[in-house]
Amino acid sequence: MTNDIPNIEGAVCAPPLAHEERIVMGHGAGGRMSHQLIRKVFMSAFQNSALNAGDDAALIQLDARQRLSVSVDAHVVEPLFFPGGDIGKLAVCGSVNDAAMLGATPLYLTAGFILEEGLPIETLRRVVESMRAAADEAGVQIIAGDTKVVQKGKADGLYITTTGVGVVREGVNISGANAKVGDAVILSGAIGDHGIAVLGARGELGFQSSLQSDVAPLNRLIAAALDASPNIHVLRDPTRGGLATTLNEIAAQSNVGVVLHESAIPVRAEVNAACEMLGFDALYVANEGKVVVIVPQEDAEKVLAAMKSAKYGEDSVIIGEVVAEPKARVLLKTVLGSTRVADMLAGEMLPRIC
Amino acid sequence: MTNDIPNIEGAVCAPPLAHEERIVMGHGAGGRMSHQLIRKVFMSAFQNSALNAGDDAALIQLDARQRLSVSVDAHVVEPLFFPGGDIGKLAVCGSVNDAAMLGATPLYLTAGFILEEGLPIETLRRVVESMRAAADEAGVQIIAGDTKVVQKGKADGLYITTTGVGVVREGVNISGANAKVGDAVILSGAIGDHGIAVLGARGELGFQSSLQSDVAPLNRLIAAALDASPNIHVLRDPTRGGLATTLNEIAAQSNVGVVLHESAIPVRAEVNAACEMLGFDALYVANEGKVVVIVPQEDAEKVLAAMKSAKYGEDSVIIGEVVAEPKARVLLKTVLGSTRVADMLAGEMLPRIC
Repeated sequence: MTNDIPNIEGAVCAPPLAHEERIVMGHGAGGRMSHQLIRKVFMSAFQNSALNAGDDAALIQLDARQRLSVSVDAHVVEPLFFPGGDIGKLAVCGSVNDAAMLGATPLYLTAGFILEEGLPIETLRRVVESMRAAADEAGVQIIAGDTKVVQKGKADGLYITTTGVGVVREGVNISGANAKVGDAVILSGAIGDHGIAVLGARGELGFQSSLQSDVAPLNRLIAAALDASPNIHVLRDPTRGGLATTLNEIAAQSNVGVVLHESAIPVRAEVNAACEMLGFDALYVANEGKVVVIVPQEDAEKVLAAMKSAKYGEDSVIIGEVVAEPKARVLLKTVLGSTRVADMLAGEMLPRIC
Repeated sequence: MTNDIPNIEGAVCAPPLAHEERIVMGHGAGGRMSHQLIRKVFMSAFQNSALNAGDDAALIQLDARQRLSVSVDAHVVEPLFFPGGDIGKLAVCGSVNDAAMLGATPLYLTAGFILEEGLPIETLRRVVESMRAAADEAGVQIIAGDTKVVQKGKADGLYITTTGVGVVREGVNISGANAKVGDAVILSGAIGDHGIAVLGARGELGFQSSLQSDVAPLNRLIAAALDASPNIHVLRDPTRGGLATTLNEIAAQSNVGVVLHESAIPVRAEVNAACEMLGFDALYVANEGKVVVIVPQEDAEKVLAAMKSAKYGEDSVIIGEVVAEPKARVLLKTVLGSTRVADMLAGEMLPRIC
């Protein structure tokens, strides 16, 4: 995701890269280590305004009228199939959702496949059929593809990299840098389902779980929110790194604070149970079918109502607000009444989650 | 490349996929096995006009005025560094060139990185710097990126998937389906350099070679050709599968024949020597900095002159012409005066070449 590319504030607190000479799993976890690698290696080389914006997708001003939203995601989830989805559905929804996060209508996808020698073609067929179904639901076309094959052991079944292209609505101006003091923070539903469902598919939960990944195309939910108010300031899906990391990115980009009310954040009992057992915090577990909407207070109720009446938004809830201080920080008011800082994910928590 | 997606004619002669149950290296070689896999697995699922066109890039009619060219390439070249280039330069040039092949000006790239745990960060820096240099030369911006990390042994250093977005010139209508009987076939220079240079880097030549890959951004060469004549019918870069496979794709898409004059096709002595030793035919060896231009005879000389005066086109030459029969076939008039069919690459020749 383009929001792997952090704004400068967001990465200032990262330790120097000099101490790390090799890639480790934490560099792919979507937290501070990922941001640090990207800032030190990629940002310093690829300087341009679209990239520097640090949003889920890049905004392209094609001409006086047309604005495009372009996103890219590499998918390496393990296992390839998990409750509620698979790598194909994940690849389509990931790029559809990122492209939509600038207030765009996703229209087109490209897909690059890296296949491991020996992969059963029936497995590939299942993944491709899942991509087709997800693309049909989202209303996007997969217009270009490429396929490469690597020797046995040089990949893990298959990897899929998708790029999404969307047309940005006229009259909207959405970015992680646009959160304003007083804005309401809306979350579209329960957190942590994807990460815990994938762990379950790996047999790492130690108990049977009926939990399903929340992976879903969110473009119509976002369209419903924008129909209710074109004044939405921020849209972002809390994927790798979870809700806390996503809100830290936004707080840093907008140079504001975010206060969350822990009691308002929906978490399923199974996710809580798994997190307690594994020592995780659901605030940092990946989601693939949730969106954070930051909107002026005066529009919050109508946007919330529109989201609740849209598919994948039924459990939408206001979870907090944007404050002036502390800047670039996320504070959590706990159920016990205390307040703690919810920092960005530090390193590795769940590898190969998407 | 989108031209991994063959037109139906091009794939009719392929044997049924039912006989193959698993992915083999030949599925990634860019020849008939690749076309067959893509037709049976991808085309049957992802039906849309842009994809079905089977060109190097997908044409998107954004509105009454704007046409976009969108291409995607997954890059798994082994080794990562080779004479004349590396996986980073290859990734940028591959998508720049494919996006340009519809007569477009490439403007934007996305890049998805799959990194292997343990990859030296200095290696990644070198690749990224090479991407920056190639993007600067091509005049494109890398506007969005994503980075994932997989465990040691689950990748081969790094893989890069790039998507290119370009704006199609007004007044041009270029496709592999547009070759017309009587058209001239122009090639921008010597064939086989990339494939043989990569083999050399693997130490598979058995002799020292100073041969360099021809990997280069061709967008300015193509712009020069289009400035000379907007009537160009076909543009395509003969990458995986080589010149013969590319011309077979075009012959099938346009339902015409192509006659090549072997004596006119430039091949370096080192490439000929390597091919003789290894039992290869240079017509099937990959290029990464060459383009085939098919243009009406009356415009051929001025397009040729424009190409010769442009960087990477100095050795451009007319190598053949488009004929009515045999349809969907490429004939080679040999130096000995005989004529043989130059068919599409059947299976695997050089794995992991791009």
